[in-house]
Amino acid sequence: MSFVTFLEYMAVIVSAIYGLLLATRTGLDFVGAFAVAFAAAFGGGTLRDLFLDRTPLFWIGNPHYSMTVLGICILSVFFVKHLPRIKPLLIYPDAVGVALFTIVGTAISLEYQDSWFIAAILGTITGTFGSVLADIICNEVPDLFKASPLCATCSFAGAWLYICGNQFGIDETLLLTLSVTFIVIFRLCAVWRNWCFKPLR
Amino acid sequence: MSFVTFLEYMAVIVSAIYGLLLATRTGLDFVGAFAVAFAAAFGGGTLRDLFLDRTPLFWIGNPHYSMTVLGICILSVFFVKHLPRIKPLLIYPDAVGVALFTIVGTAISLEYQDSWFIAAILGTITGTFGSVLADIICNEVPDLFKASPLCATCSFAGAWLYICGNQFGIDETLLLTLSVTFIVIFRLCAVWRNWCFKPLR
Amino acid sequence: MSFVTFLEYMAVIVSAIYGLLLATRTGLDFVGAFAVAFAAAFGGGTLRDLFLDRTPLFWIGNPHYSMTVLGICILSVFFVKHLPRIKPLLIYPDAVGVALFTIVGTAISLEYQDSWFIAAILGTITGTFGSVLADIICNEVPDLFKASPLCATCSFAGAWLYICGNQFGIDETLLLTLSVTFIVIFRLCAVWRNWCFKPLR
Repeated sequence: MSFVTFLEYMAVIVSAIYGLLLATRTGLDFVGAFAVAFAAAFGGGTLRDLFLDRTPLFWIGNPHYSMTVLGICILSVFFVKHLPRIKPLLIYPDAVGVALFTIVGTAISLEYQDSWFIAAILGTITGTFGSVLADIICNEVPDLFKASPLCATCSFAGAWLYICGNQFGIDETLLLTLSVTFIVIFRLCAVWRNWCFKPLR
Repeated sequence: MSFVTFLEYMAVIVSAIYGLLLATRTGLDFVGAFAVAFAAAFGGGTLRDLFLDRTPLFWIGNPHYSMTVLGICILSVFFVKHLPRIKPLLIYPDAVGVALFTIVGTAISLEYQDSWFIAAILGTITGTFGSVLADIICNEVPDLFKASPLCATCSFAGAWLYICGNQFGIDETLLLTLSVTFIVIFRLCAVWRNWCFKPLR
Repeated sequence: MSFVTFLEYMAVIVSAIYGLLLATRTGLDFVGAFAVAFAAAFGGGTLRDLFLDRTPLFWIGNPHYSMTVLGICILSVFFVKHLPRIKPLLIYPDAVGVALFTIVGTAISLEYQDSWFIAAILGTITGTFGSVLADIICNEVPDLFKASPLCATCSFAGAWLYICGNQFGIDETLLLTLSVTFIVIFRLCAVWRNWCFKPLR
């Protein structure tokens, strides 16, 4: 198993936990929670694979991914009851999941086509679309599109960091770890310090 | 024409009727009604075909499918005026359409990849996504994600019934009929008796 | 560069401007505006390419398309401040963008499969889905589905005009220009004179 595959598996797990917590907070039942966890974990990568015409889709080629998501949902039934407040926890799996999926998505997109700019965009889509989809299902206005702490911006910056590092021939494992860490820290700081862009007008 | 193809054609017709009734109830015009009927009839199967990289898409390879949907919409202009109340009728085409598309989707997914679990999930997506899409266009919160009578659960259970039967070598036509009937009855009972899961927390 | 490719490039530019104006009006920041412009410019064509299994996607195969969209967004930062009112302007880039994408989409769909009816539907999807997506992100109920001035109808009629003209062997460049002009005028008239279908019931 390559390091990218390992990061992808981590991304699936962390994003599924994000989806699960969000669904629990919204008051969904078990099936709804599984649907949201599924969407959070596979939404972004599915779009990337469809756009790049990569077959089979990453979760169809790796059936243990969806079984892991199901396992997490079943296990969680016993744990989520005991969580006092879910809202302040959401940011951690969100930040880590977005970071992992962004860098994995960028790395895969670089392999499948030549443009750096497209790779950065596809990386950002891979990273953010899963949680956007989960937000939509849970009937929240996705944070991504509000004038809220930078999320897509962190992804996009991290994707460029990876692309540049890759170009300069930095060691792959080191570079992957660095870029993921960069996005996580950037995103957490943005939320804590409430960094925002101002509206265009 | 195989029995699966026949069931698929029935599924398209029944789902188009569901979309049409829903659009009429929402007060859409002819074009809106066609769009909703189209989305209800082709939404789920399109997602399945994209995910499995099946080409051409089932409604592009069978142009008479969309002409049938158009025909139903044109015919219906003369009929929907005379319906006293639409809401109580919606459950029947919904249950039948979901059941047919779920089993057809499961059968096709089993052919295109190996995992049973993935086949059951793709079957459920094929079955439910069309009406979710129609609900979204008509600005209703999709039932699927509310703590409402089990819909995805019926699909998922029916998909597994088909997969197991298929494994034990039960006659294909019998098995298809059985699984579709199972989902229809299970879904109608769920609505009538208001079977629900309880929220996770 | 063929005339169809030229029209496609124009369509991307005009649709990006539509998305940008819409995002500015909604009060989004730079990143949100880029996302909406991106969705408006590439949404419809992406769906068409996925449905037809055309690879690479038109914006992945032409990376300068997305750079153009980014350039428009950067330039606009200096201009949108000075616009007195945005709402009355929106109809022009919308009408032109929809017209261009519809005809380009129809022309491409005719090449990739045989059915005229499917080509007209795919053209309409290519034309309208981008602005529907932009509307959804900006949290407006898409006009397409309200009993509002005909939009999908104009696209659909224009697509048939192109298909018929194509069949009678009319000169390609002339025919493309004619059909695009037809849709633009039809759509503007529909908005100005408030042409609507009436609800089905």
